[in-house]
Amino acid sequence: MDRRRSHAARMVVAALALTTTVLSQGGCDLGSAGVARAADAGGPGLQKLMKDRNLSEADVTAALKTYTPTGRHDEYYLFASGGHGGNVIVIGVPSMRILKYVAVFTPEPWQGYGYGDQSDDILASGNRHGHTLSWADTHHPALSETKGDYDGRYLFIGDKANARVAVVDLKDFVTKQIVESNLIESDHGGTFVTPNTDYVIETSQYPSPFGGEYVPLDKFDEAYRGAMIFWKFDREKGRIVPAESFAVELPPYTQDLADAGKLVSDGFAFCNSINTERAYGGDMEGRPPMESSYSQNDMDYLHVVDWRKAEQLAKAGKTETIKGFRVIRLATAIENDILHFIPEPKSPHGVDVSPDGKDIVVGGKLDTHATVYSIEKIKKLIADKKYEGKDPYGVPILSFQESIRGQVEIGLGPLHTQFDDQGNAYTSVFIESVVAKWNLKDLKLIEKLPAHYNIGHLAAAEGDTVSPDGRFLVMMDKWAIDRFAPVGPLLPQNFQLVDLSQDKLQLLYDMPLPLGEPHYAQMIKADKIHAEEIYKPAGTNPLTDQKDPFAVEGGKERVERKPDGVHIYMTAIRSHFTPDIVHVKEGDQVHLHITNLEQAQDATHGFALDSHNIQLSLEPGEHANVDFVADKPGVFPMYCTEFCSALHLEMAGYFLVEPKVAETKPAPAKPAKRAGG
Amino acid sequence: MDRRRSHAARMVVAALALTTTVLSQGGCDLGSAGVARAADAGGPGLQKLMKDRNLSEADVTAALKTYTPTGRHDEYYLFASGGHGGNVIVIGVPSMRILKYVAVFTPEPWQGYGYGDQSDDILASGNRHGHTLSWADTHHPALSETKGDYDGRYLFIGDKANARVAVVDLKDFVTKQIVESNLIESDHGGTFVTPNTDYVIETSQYPSPFGGEYVPLDKFDEAYRGAMIFWKFDREKGRIVPAESFAVELPPYTQDLADAGKLVSDGFAFCNSINTERAYGGDMEGRPPMESSYSQNDMDYLHVVDWRKAEQLAKAGKTETIKGFRVIRLATAIENDILHFIPEPKSPHGVDVSPDGKDIVVGGKLDTHATVYSIEKIKKLIADKKYEGKDPYGVPILSFQESIRGQVEIGLGPLHTQFDDQGNAYTSVFIESVVAKWNLKDLKLIEKLPAHYNIGHLAAAEGDTVSPDGRFLVMMDKWAIDRFAPVGPLLPQNFQLVDLSQDKLQLLYDMPLPLGEPHYAQMIKADKIHAEEIYKPAGTNPLTDQKDPFAVEGGKERVERKPDGVHIYMTAIRSHFTPDIVHVKEGDQVHLHITNLEQAQDATHGFALDSHNIQLSLEPGEHANVDFVADKPGVFPMYCTEFCSALHLEMAGYFLVEPKVAETKPAPAKPAKRAGG
Repeated sequence: MDRRRSHAARMVVAALALTTTVLSQGGCDLGSAGVARAADAGGPGLQKLMKDRNLSEADVTAALKTYTPTGRHDEYYLFASGGHGGNVIVIGVPSMRILKYVAVFTPEPWQGYGYGDQSDDILASGNRHGHTLSWADTHHPALSETKGDYDGRYLFIGDKANARVAVVDLKDFVTKQIVESNLIESDHGGTFVTPNTDYVIETSQYPSPFGGEYVPLDKFDEAYRGAMIFWKFDREKGRIVPAESFAVELPPYTQDLADAGKLVSDGFAFCNSINTERAYGGDMEGRPPMESSYSQNDMDYLHVVDWRKAEQLAKAGKTETIKGFRVIRLATAIENDILHFIPEPKSPHGVDVSPDGKDIVVGGKLDTHATVYSIEKIKKLIADKKYEGKDPYGVPILSFQESIRGQVEIGLGPLHTQFDDQGNAYTSVFIESVVAKWNLKDLKLIEKLPAHYNIGHLAAAEGDTVSPDGRFLVMMDKWAIDRFAPVGPLLPQNFQLVDLSQDKLQLLYDMPLPLGEPHYAQMIKADKIHAEEIYKPAGTNPLTDQKDPFAVEGGKERVERKPDGVHIYMTAIRSHFTPDIVHVKEGDQVHLHITNLEQAQDATHGFALDSHNIQLSLEPGEHANVDFVADKPGVFPMYCTEFCSALHLEMAGYFLVEPKVAETKPAPAKPAKRAGG
Repeated sequence: MDRRRSHAARMVVAALALTTTVLSQGGCDLGSAGVARAADAGGPGLQKLMKDRNLSEADVTAALKTYTPTGRHDEYYLFASGGHGGNVIVIGVPSMRILKYVAVFTPEPWQGYGYGDQSDDILASGNRHGHTLSWADTHHPALSETKGDYDGRYLFIGDKANARVAVVDLKDFVTKQIVESNLIESDHGGTFVTPNTDYVIETSQYPSPFGGEYVPLDKFDEAYRGAMIFWKFDREKGRIVPAESFAVELPPYTQDLADAGKLVSDGFAFCNSINTERAYGGDMEGRPPMESSYSQNDMDYLHVVDWRKAEQLAKAGKTETIKGFRVIRLATAIENDILHFIPEPKSPHGVDVSPDGKDIVVGGKLDTHATVYSIEKIKKLIADKKYEGKDPYGVPILSFQESIRGQVEIGLGPLHTQFDDQGNAYTSVFIESVVAKWNLKDLKLIEKLPAHYNIGHLAAAEGDTVSPDGRFLVMMDKWAIDRFAPVGPLLPQNFQLVDLSQDKLQLLYDMPLPLGEPHYAQMIKADKIHAEEIYKPAGTNPLTDQKDPFAVEGGKERVERKPDGVHIYMTAIRSHFTPDIVHVKEGDQVHLHITNLEQAQDATHGFALDSHNIQLSLEPGEHANVDFVADKPGVFPMYCTEFCSALHLEMAGYFLVEPKVAETKPAPAKPAKRAGG
């Protein structure tokens, strides 16, 4: 008992001492008394641990708010674009662990995406101008919505570099479709969805002649154009329907980010623009570079598009078809009150609609304000046809002063805005490198939190919906510099997790991005995602979501020589392929049909064929079809690449290509498929 | 003061109550008294946090042992193979954050690897049998060593699928070289380095005819072979020298993992084998599948190769050159005492040499023991030429009983072994799904810790060196099943971090692998890595590590039309390209030379050309050369893909290809380069 008493006495002293301790920034601290006692109690103890690892009380709080013990699932998924990685990154919040990279526009062999099976066709559907494309610059992911809330079913993602849009199904986290309009050459304001995912919005960035034609730059004003594209989404089929999609022609300003209205602003789409100067560079031709010529004007134009009216026009056939895509021409758009401009200050970048749909918040890269436009005021000005003038293309311009509800001074370089459940807005401020918290109601700045470094976008929990959750915010910092152990000249970005649940903002976690350069992300409640564990029935083709016509049943494995080539019907199950030896002849057109017969979760098999660039990932129940010409004689091991069992190394076989001797080789029916490129 | 006293009094009560608290598994606990006090002190408090997030005291300890506050660097780097992702994954320990994916065999656009610049040539050097290869199955990374310790300079990695080896420079974390022997079709026992990195070892897996010839399977015994390849490494140049490399021919068993001797065993290399039955499948030809036919024998052969003697033989010209590669034939190897076999039990998999070099530990997938061979005993048997017999190819066999020091019963399915600084060994036990800790001195099992699930390899801090650190162990679990929020049928693997610093093993962290399927990893002290921040001088070509002949200086940007095409000398600096407009004609051969003039850390610029599959990552000071044919007329935006400044979006320009009209189009000089394929 003596020992206990003396211990207790020490705690009293420690507790008294602690009353003078300054509370941590998070508003909570651990208590050194407890630390002392723990150190007493045996083991290294908390105090020693804090000392050894140089952890402050705020660090301890942050650790406990993010640490997610074994087997426990994260509360949110953060879906981030992969930037020029061409993929989508799925991150668990609050642990900030990356759960998956989803291959979208870039071939990825671990997922067996673009390495010989039917996924090659998805990638090929995104080729442009006769060139094979095997990367993208993915920018803005959009979760599908129902009544303005994320519904967890689909994810859309745009490719800035080549103006394409892809559809990812969140049942299996697989890319199902890539579409392109053939109209524009780059996009930025995409993807954003309308509140019931009727349309997926893609807005052009750098102006170019519609349809990929060559037009010299001195015809820029006349022949270069922008567009806002409305991709019709068929929720039942889970696919975009290009034939029911349309574009609204825009002047050759450099359109920037977009957002869809919701609730009171439902039916409208908004996008920013820079470069109403219509500059196009020429720094070796006597003109200034774009970085200065784009920013001469104090104001550019917020574009306000009435997409419901536009939809009616498209349905009524008031479109012109360019390269197979329906376009509402600028004159038609103006004539039918579809398009209005409102001045917006200074090098505009982000536009974000508030949860109640009433406000449209714009940030200008060279401004110091968040500017809040009122849809009520905008609607009235449009209804009253009260214009301040027209742009050179005849688009009516509404008054800046009469459209806005106000401005908040938040610091130099505001970009993007997210929202919480308490009526607060959070704006990333790039040049000042902070996030600014401010109040939507009275437009008052509340607090700033530094970012490390150069915050671009930010994402709050359910932050783009009609009912944000608050709780968490992720600052998407463009530079990391010294934040992480060095990995050479190319550094990760830094995602910083912030706790929104207290009065003061608390930084919780720094997370490096090891591959890709995310631009935007959306954060959804984990219980909204209903990912499937296996493909049912066995033999399912993930791209049709149905049993494949070439699906193979156990016991029905076979090899058939037909006029179109050798068909190999193969199965995979722990731990063998059947057949495990394949004989073909040089020049044979090979059709390999493989079904993974497993129906147990995580029982994935890979299939690799040596020196043929073929690598499949066969999830439980998945079926794959592979076509190639056996153009090289030899003995090629084939094996399971996914460690599936104790006898995984034995899940192998030989693919033998017998040379054609004493015969003239016929030309192969089809060139050997080169997966991944 | 009253409030303080009453608070202190409550703490005494709480502290007394706590003496009965059971200590957490980690041997330390937090102290509920401290928790109570913290809850008192204002803010949500620790106790509430633990309750809200359902954290045990062990969880709290684990959180504090792994959480790494903003700006603090990890203590270790873990370099893991990416499996069929074809890359290398760099992870910080103890935070278990992924710091970088290093592209090796698979094109990766974020890094600008294989998307138009000189890195295309590195990838192309790995093509085989006339096929473009754009993936790999990377298995065993090896850090370069000096005197048996990791020196932090280079990383080697093998491709099981296509039998290739790559060199990554840890100055810039860039892949500098890919080599292949043209001899074998798959490897597994690679890469492993000799203690001074004289050689990088690559051992074949599935037997095949040397040099890629076609030989039917009924000639398996005579014509199929394995090999252990010794790639000579030139440390000064940082490159493998194929002409000074050689192979030792092996019988057509399925060779498995390898390791190099150190200290007393220096000069030897070891590899396991399965399938001394020489089965080759045929499950549709009346034979059993490999999974059963490979495991008929109770014992297979541990291969003991005297590489110093082999090196002398190679230098003396006692080799045969097959497809340009020098091979010490089996007869020569036997005649010169280079190759010996020792029986090893039951479906052998991992072989690992102890830090003092005295013991060689073998795990058998269907065994229950770790078997410990003694190099002293092996050396004596070899010196005495005391053989038990010979295998069918004439290789002398040493006695199992006389070679081993003993066996430790550790559970069903032992695979791989790592070591700490206290004389303990840690063996992964796949079927039982545990890690077993045992003592090297007296070969006694100490403790088992469950893995979730199916542990394959494991990696300890500096665990393959002559001086392991202890402290941390990573269990590399093949299946995750329910550990993480679901992401569809294809699940991540699970890396579980374990604390070795206490008496009892404590699980600290579960980390999902979001891309790739790592096989092995090595963990190195962070202060051994000296990564560079920028390329110096500006204009450096990362593949030659020298200033490129086409490097461009600021003010010397220009366009030159030459007989071999149009040369564009371009610079990139915040926030413009010079020139920002490029005019070429349809059919022009374009040579684009771009230097990033930045010399500030993290000031990377990307360069993307719309619809041409060109995407470069230009780190500060980096120079890139791009060759392609402008075969499609049109207007193609080009822009910086790496968010570099507030005016990053304005870092853009136009690449115009004027159509050839009224002329017959000449065939392009060279087909358009299709990067990434």
